[in-house]
Amino acid sequence: MRKVAVLGIGQTPVGEHWDKSLKGLAGEAVFSALADCGLERVDGIFVGNMLSGSLNRQENLGVMIADWSGLWQAEAVKVETACSSGGSALRAGFIAVASGEMDTALVVGVEKMTDTKPNETTAALATAADADYEAAQGLSFVAINALVMQRYMHEYRWNHADFAPFSITAHANAVHNPYARLPFSITEEEYRHARMVAEPINLLDASPIGDGAAAIVLVPADRLTSGNNPGRRVITIVGSATATDTIAVHDRRDPLWLSAAAASAQRAYQQAGIGPQDVDFFELHDAFSIMSALSLEACGFAERGRGPRLGLNGEITINGRIPIATRGGLKARGHPVGATGVYQVVEVVQQLRGEAGPTQLERARIGMAQSVGGSGATIVTHILQAT
Amino acid sequence: MRKVAVLGIGQTPVGEHWDKSLKGLAGEAVFSALADCGLERVDGIFVGNMLSGSLNRQENLGVMIADWSGLWQAEAVKVETACSSGGSALRAGFIAVASGEMDTALVVGVEKMTDTKPNETTAALATAADADYEAAQGLSFVAINALVMQRYMHEYRWNHADFAPFSITAHANAVHNPYARLPFSITEEEYRHARMVAEPINLLDASPIGDGAAAIVLVPADRLTSGNNPGRRVITIVGSATATDTIAVHDRRDPLWLSAAAASAQRAYQQAGIGPQDVDFFELHDAFSIMSALSLEACGFAERGRGPRLGLNGEITINGRIPIATRGGLKARGHPVGATGVYQVVEVVQQLRGEAGPTQLERARIGMAQSVGGSGATIVTHILQAT
Repeated sequence: MRKVAVLGIGQTPVGEHWDKSLKGLAGEAVFSALADCGLERVDGIFVGNMLSGSLNRQENLGVMIADWSGLWQAEAVKVETACSSGGSALRAGFIAVASGEMDTALVVGVEKMTDTKPNETTAALATAADADYEAAQGLSFVAINALVMQRYMHEYRWNHADFAPFSITAHANAVHNPYARLPFSITEEEYRHARMVAEPINLLDASPIGDGAAAIVLVPADRLTSGNNPGRRVITIVGSATATDTIAVHDRRDPLWLSAAAASAQRAYQQAGIGPQDVDFFELHDAFSIMSALSLEACGFAERGRGPRLGLNGEITINGRIPIATRGGLKARGHPVGATGVYQVVEVVQQLRGEAGPTQLERARIGMAQSVGGSGATIVTHILQAT
Repeated sequence: MRKVAVLGIGQTPVGEHWDKSLKGLAGEAVFSALADCGLERVDGIFVGNMLSGSLNRQENLGVMIADWSGLWQAEAVKVETACSSGGSALRAGFIAVASGEMDTALVVGVEKMTDTKPNETTAALATAADADYEAAQGLSFVAINALVMQRYMHEYRWNHADFAPFSITAHANAVHNPYARLPFSITEEEYRHARMVAEPINLLDASPIGDGAAAIVLVPADRLTSGNNPGRRVITIVGSATATDTIAVHDRRDPLWLSAAAASAQRAYQQAGIGPQDVDFFELHDAFSIMSALSLEACGFAERGRGPRLGLNGEITINGRIPIATRGGLKARGHPVGATGVYQVVEVVQQLRGEAGPTQLERARIGMAQSVGGSGATIVTHILQAT
């Protein structure tokens, strides 16, 4: 397997882009990523997307985006693993380049969720859960997470307010991200009094859906030159792994342990030859605040049941021990589901390049991104390193 | 890249399986493929499927099938390229094993299309075309193919009856395939008088949709032993390539030339070190009879505009120069869209193993399968060889 480097990145703001088509949105991110590295052709296109068939009536999305972007003849596929589709598309592109099967891969995450009625979008999102044993019982996605959070608070004796730092930190960082969906800060007071969605999850525990696209160009690391990567650090993918758990939360021995996060992070750490103590920042999948706590625990940053403590101790902010959601996270950058995994890695690259503006970390040499499909069912972990 | 071998195959009959769920159907093919080679665990699962989100309300299909099949923790994704999703899933599994990233990959094609109303299924199939410029104009899939066939007949002066051998051959072969959806023979008289669907395509030019699943287990060729592959020939994938064209037929310079078929076949021939003259049989994508003619031409088996001649000369039957649809093809085995590409390769393996019953070819050393997503938009070609 060859070492794989990130040559270019691109993204669109996350928002309600009613004036743009699905392919137009994807095209913006593609053109921006190609312009970022001066490439005009690629060998393969890997599209991360969950809902184009049900919400946009468009499948065959790989070739659709290849065609729209003028990347004719390139190999093209769509990869779907619910909300981790972007992470899975990146992993497919990574394997294709690492193997030598391709010399250039374009990874595109795109989702368009706001053209449909909210109840249609909510129903479509529920297709990430078990259709027969979860969705058919009326369990929406937020409801599943509410059950998990309720249990977590009971088991480990946390109050709802203890989760506030996750959302406050994400919003604070989003203020400085021009691509963020909710670029405003929130107070603990606002967090505590936000409108209830599904007890105990309130509006400020939950990430907003949105329309958006992000793109990444991958090449073999030995193709980087001062010509095509001028004045930039070399950023390589040093860890890439996916693991799965049961699709339904009720089938797990322990509904409060993300075993697929633990397994995929462990494998990625091994590949990178590092441990959690070496990770400078972590773009985690904070679809709901409870997910931040569970991910931090499963990946070795907090002891079991102690995730919220990291927030309360100020360890997750830009100046903390393990900064998370440095560009706003799912909570405030927004969560265009199939695109999110690609946004996360674009943001890791921004940090590693030193292009993160006011939220630039002082030390950003190793960054980790983790993408979750379903309630912890499919989990994809990537570790990137700058040299 | 390591050489990749097919260790196990499995399939379900194609039909109207109203008594089976999507995952149950997939599970049958999975268990059958695992039993075929005595494996109980795999590293990765690659699911080819097009319509689970819109017709079955189930995404996250990779982990859904992993979970249902008891293959917990395995990496799992769904790969979508419309009707070539099965071929694309196989290619993803092939790259993962060839690269050394995995030692065992399970490729599963599954589709469940008959639980919904026919107009819902037809609308869902139209998502393979350009949503804005084709589907929105009311162009269904059969209508697109009818326009192409009409033009082909005009340009190259063929009559509708000249296409009869494609359908007659497919049905004749399906009679002997216990997994076929339409296992009965048809006459030229019946072909000519079949009910019109979209002029000039009649019911016997068109493949039937259906529910079905097929599965293939891939391993590195050097892992094959007399223990795990007893008394069987070694079957390796010697060519694997995907190419794309514009998604909409009206955007092509020549709507009668499958450039993506030509490009992917050419690349696969090169990898295998062979030419069309070395291919013993060809499982092509005969979704409509016109597609058989176009594929044979693009892959070098017939001159341009001369595809139907192969049928009229008896060259595509079991004893002909280039047998096609040897187990019934899409036309008579049936076309559960995202599963079809996997069925094709299962059938190639049956021929290469000598397990094709009354339609067993005398000479079956090199077999080719080609899967088409959209009207020639995404085309995946695989060449398999037995030694």
